[in-house]
Amino acid sequence: MAAIDALSTTSDSARLAERVAELERRIAQLEGSQPDDRLSLVVFSGDLDRVLAAFVIATGAAAMGQQVDMFFTFWGLTALKTNTQLSGKTFLQQMMSVMTPAASTGLPVSRMNYFGAGSRMLRAMMQQQNIESLEGLMTLARDLGVTVIACDMSQNVMGIRDEELMPGVEHGGVATFLGSALRARASLFI
Amino acid sequence: MAAIDALSTTSDSARLAERVAELERRIAQLEGSQPDDRLSLVVFSGDLDRVLAAFVIATGAAAMGQQVDMFFTFWGLTALKTNTQLSGKTFLQQMMSVMTPAASTGLPVSRMNYFGAGSRMLRAMMQQQNIESLEGLMTLARDLGVTVIACDMSQNVMGIRDEELMPGVEHGGVATFLGSALRARASLFI
Amino acid sequence: MAAIDALSTTSDSARLAERVAELERRIAQLEGSQPDDRLSLVVFSGDLDRVLAAFVIATGAAAMGQQVDMFFTFWGLTALKTNTQLSGKTFLQQMMSVMTPAASTGLPVSRMNYFGAGSRMLRAMMQQQNIESLEGLMTLARDLGVTVIACDMSQNVMGIRDEELMPGVEHGGVATFLGSALRARASLFI
Repeated sequence: MAAIDALSTTSDSARLAERVAELERRIAQLEGSQPDDRLSLVVFSGDLDRVLAAFVIATGAAAMGQQVDMFFTFWGLTALKTNTQLSGKTFLQQMMSVMTPAASTGLPVSRMNYFGAGSRMLRAMMQQQNIESLEGLMTLARDLGVTVIACDMSQNVMGIRDEELMPGVEHGGVATFLGSALRARASLFI
Repeated sequence: MAAIDALSTTSDSARLAERVAELERRIAQLEGSQPDDRLSLVVFSGDLDRVLAAFVIATGAAAMGQQVDMFFTFWGLTALKTNTQLSGKTFLQQMMSVMTPAASTGLPVSRMNYFGAGSRMLRAMMQQQNIESLEGLMTLARDLGVTVIACDMSQNVMGIRDEELMPGVEHGGVATFLGSALRARASLFI
Repeated sequence: MAAIDALSTTSDSARLAERVAELERRIAQLEGSQPDDRLSLVVFSGDLDRVLAAFVIATGAAAMGQQVDMFFTFWGLTALKTNTQLSGKTFLQQMMSVMTPAASTGLPVSRMNYFGAGSRMLRAMMQQQNIESLEGLMTLARDLGVTVIACDMSQNVMGIRDEELMPGVEHGGVATFLGSALRARASLFI
């Protein structure tokens, strides 16, 4: 009797070991496809108010321990500019350079801009409440390890050269953004 | 023989029990990091058409059993206003109060607003199709348990007082939003 | 002794089998609630620059093997139009038809549009860099199996008829969008 029991136990045990091995495979696959502690932002807008919102969210998430990837494209690239150069650009790219802000301090607001009065008003109201300026938030983001990526394709179309952008900017394309967004806990298009 | 088999089985069984215990730890960790049945929305825009889209999505998701958190910031706060008060505000805040809508019924559309004609046109077109008005959707959202949160920092900058907002609004900051977005199934910036 | 060991092993083994069965239930539940390889986009904007960004992201994600669902609502619907018909529309819907672009080639840019000059400038700058036009990206999206869905409610409000839209467009409501977004790896509101 004991011998038979032991045999049947051994066979049960082997079947159980197989089920456990199968669970180990399935759980490893689940673990491998979980999102990172990551937030992924597209900054498409070049409006002061929207770029401010992007950096408030980015620095907040970084302070909470998330890896934050900010992908600047189109008008958003103007927020990363520190100067404007015209040489080596096509006529249309030169026109675009002249008609868009030369630096973050020149960003308009999305509403009631009135040729920059709205931007100055918003900046003054933030200062009155002792809230960090956009430039202060950008420095904070860098200090917190936020990754700032400039969209290659937009740079090419608008003719924005790397030397016009602030230091520390990385470069990438839509695959860079998707590589981040598809394994992020949240993604926003701003 | 039987004794040896049983011994070896016991030892296999102990090893298997350890593997199962390890799986239990890993699966508990996975379960703990899964998103809630939750949708998280930033309503940054104060345009009637975009705020409408936000409430259509919010009420739709709530009706499907999702917890919905709507985080109103910047121009989006004007959608929550029911009146405008000027006392106790700085000059710039008073200017902002006068230049932005005093209530949801005064929201402009993002395009072709023509001093409010566009908004009236959109509202008329919705009524012709028997679609709920923005104010009706707001009531529905409240009835469905949607959480409406006003951004503290934006309120401070713009000088919007709690008494100017509709009843039932909660208050929070960027950490409140991220606390929701990072464990939501989807997050949108509107 | 051997008989007692075997008995105790059998009972341990039964308990272990129960724990494994419980793990199998929990892991199946986890697997069932994982997101698909899916990207979900709301295209609310009818601005050329934003619609371009949507299609660059959509085609990039589709090329990376993601199922992409693009949900066109409100102004975004104008990007799907190929012609404008006025018969059978209310007066307001006719006005809306006349005041919005009749096709994707007529979309304005979100900034510096100057009655279409901005759009032509952007299209020329893209061509100079050999970047696919919006219409080319739309064809690519279709070839890559991107799902293009027109929002029923917006179509009704604006009076846009199915015959005005490009072929191959599916139709859906907010539940269609949420059904996609709540099981997507990332969702964006553009």
